[in-house]
Amino acid sequence: MIRIAVDLMGGDHGPEVVVPGVGKALERHPDIRFTLFGLETECRGVLDKHPALREASTFVPCEVAVSMDDKPSQALRHGRYRSSMWRSIEAVKTGDADVCVSAGNTGALMAMSRFCLRTMANIDRPAIAAIWPTMRGESIVLDVGATVGADAQQLIDFTMMGAAMARALFEIEKPTIGLLNIGVEEIKGQEEVKEAGRLIREAAMPSFDYFGFVEGDDIGKGTVDVVVTEGFSGNIALKTAEGTARQIGSYLRAAMSRTLMARIGYLFAKGAFDLLREKMDPGKVNGGVFLGLNGIVIKSHGGADAEGFAAAVDVGYDMARNGLKAKIEHDLKLYHNRRAAFAVPVGDTSSS
Amino acid sequence: MIRIAVDLMGGDHGPEVVVPGVGKALERHPDIRFTLFGLETECRGVLDKHPALREASTFVPCEVAVSMDDKPSQALRHGRYRSSMWRSIEAVKTGDADVCVSAGNTGALMAMSRFCLRTMANIDRPAIAAIWPTMRGESIVLDVGATVGADAQQLIDFTMMGAAMARALFEIEKPTIGLLNIGVEEIKGQEEVKEAGRLIREAAMPSFDYFGFVEGDDIGKGTVDVVVTEGFSGNIALKTAEGTARQIGSYLRAAMSRTLMARIGYLFAKGAFDLLREKMDPGKVNGGVFLGLNGIVIKSHGGADAEGFAAAVDVGYDMARNGLKAKIEHDLKLYHNRRAAFAVPVGDTSSS
Repeated sequence: MIRIAVDLMGGDHGPEVVVPGVGKALERHPDIRFTLFGLETECRGVLDKHPALREASTFVPCEVAVSMDDKPSQALRHGRYRSSMWRSIEAVKTGDADVCVSAGNTGALMAMSRFCLRTMANIDRPAIAAIWPTMRGESIVLDVGATVGADAQQLIDFTMMGAAMARALFEIEKPTIGLLNIGVEEIKGQEEVKEAGRLIREAAMPSFDYFGFVEGDDIGKGTVDVVVTEGFSGNIALKTAEGTARQIGSYLRAAMSRTLMARIGYLFAKGAFDLLREKMDPGKVNGGVFLGLNGIVIKSHGGADAEGFAAAVDVGYDMARNGLKAKIEHDLKLYHNRRAAFAVPVGDTSSS
Repeated sequence: MIRIAVDLMGGDHGPEVVVPGVGKALERHPDIRFTLFGLETECRGVLDKHPALREASTFVPCEVAVSMDDKPSQALRHGRYRSSMWRSIEAVKTGDADVCVSAGNTGALMAMSRFCLRTMANIDRPAIAAIWPTMRGESIVLDVGATVGADAQQLIDFTMMGAAMARALFEIEKPTIGLLNIGVEEIKGQEEVKEAGRLIREAAMPSFDYFGFVEGDDIGKGTVDVVVTEGFSGNIALKTAEGTARQIGSYLRAAMSRTLMARIGYLFAKGAFDLLREKMDPGKVNGGVFLGLNGIVIKSHGGADAEGFAAAVDVGYDMARNGLKAKIEHDLKLYHNRRAAFAVPVGDTSSS
């Protein structure tokens, strides 16, 4: 049995979308026990429409809902200890849940998660990992915006965490990992990225294959299972890809309605277009995973529909079932033992 | 008359593609006088097939061609003073050409351009500006990879240069400018980006409208005419968008050939698909502009076909005809006068 805590109040549509989403996830995974947190007035009516879910869950009424445009500091001030967001995270901390899922605003959810769960031993800063559809399937990209900038050690931490997540999510033994960089020319690249690459290669970890540097276009190609970068460039890559997909979608719609011939063609090819739309639908691959905290928190896209929210719950289910947290802890320990064996402190490149 | 120096040896296909490309550009702009640089053995034969171009141009035989995988240091070592790349840049320095166009490798072209032309007064570092197709037309994005990282003053320089380029390229009086950032939440964003934004707003330049921060998805939306960022994230955004476009293109091809109905639909809608392909064709919008040097250098995509190379020549033509360099110099001078009037040194935020 997997126990999942859900913040019903998050997202652009709140319980109206989150509750049916949780219901869909339950149909796929009848072994989930949900604890649902939300404002009584807004949730009871919707829950009553989903008797199977009501049966498989406990509803915990809360006093406060964090709004989608609350700043992190505001959310902490008025929502700590008593908001549905806080309490669903807290359920992970107390051990009452294996994972927490919220469609609430990212800044507030990250601030509360850090405050409540704290970062893991040996981890300075958490990361947000996105699941990215590629030409070869799916890849993991992190950090997509938890923190700006990262030194070599933090990039190495992200690498360990991303590799553990890939093993839990894709159920592969040895995922491939690339560090995002800009070309392979000698004058190019960030120093931190270069140093991280050197140290990762040296450590020769058994839990993943280090591929080397990858560039922006390698993400969509699916060149590696995990792409590691700091939060500024990762967030820009993610948002830019979303923007490009929407842009091409709008070109396509315009092209298919411009002439009579095109409209006829569209009717014939409608099945193909529907498949394509489904493939390009960000809701299908939904769920940012907060890594590096003492507990797993899944962030669903705020604009996701019920199917999208269910996809985020699916991710949380896989992470919990496959022991993501234990995998990360195991890899971090192994890495630090190996580093100690090399006895070259991180940041000291004088010996190279 | 506009005088353009062309390195015939650059690109994946060399003179076989560059020469016809230059020929196409000449048909569109009969007022260009070309000076063409290349290896005699490889260029004469191709040039003889383009008599109109031969008529409107001077061919200068060179001893060396920089190869597409020469590192910048190698290119400088064996190609300085005598390669077709160097000599076409040098023609701009000596005043024999208004602009130089090359499809040679970016690292070598930038290294040689910096070495030969030097950066403009008051400019620390050059930038590469890309022309980005958007839902509203085209935008300029810079820097897309000349240098990694940028402090507030460098971001401000990029802003001035990008605004001048937008006025020259789009022929609009007051382009809108945005600084690329990751969300507007208080904990987010780079300090340099925030400081640059504050200083740009304070300067209230008459030559552009400062919009504020934009995110990755705003690029494809065309929210602003010019998007300013440092070279690492700019390069990653550009490559990620290219990768996403290719990815969706491949989904589309697969979807349209999967069933008989889809294939019939494709035949009906073929005209629409051709238009779409043209719209998504990177060759249609080709030409990275090196900004911040004492002379204009245009980098054509190495894989561009003749039409793509002609598009890069078009960009060079517009830049020269509309006095890009003078516009940048004018704006930089105005900005520094205004800053002097404020008398707050850049980097000193104690007064804010």
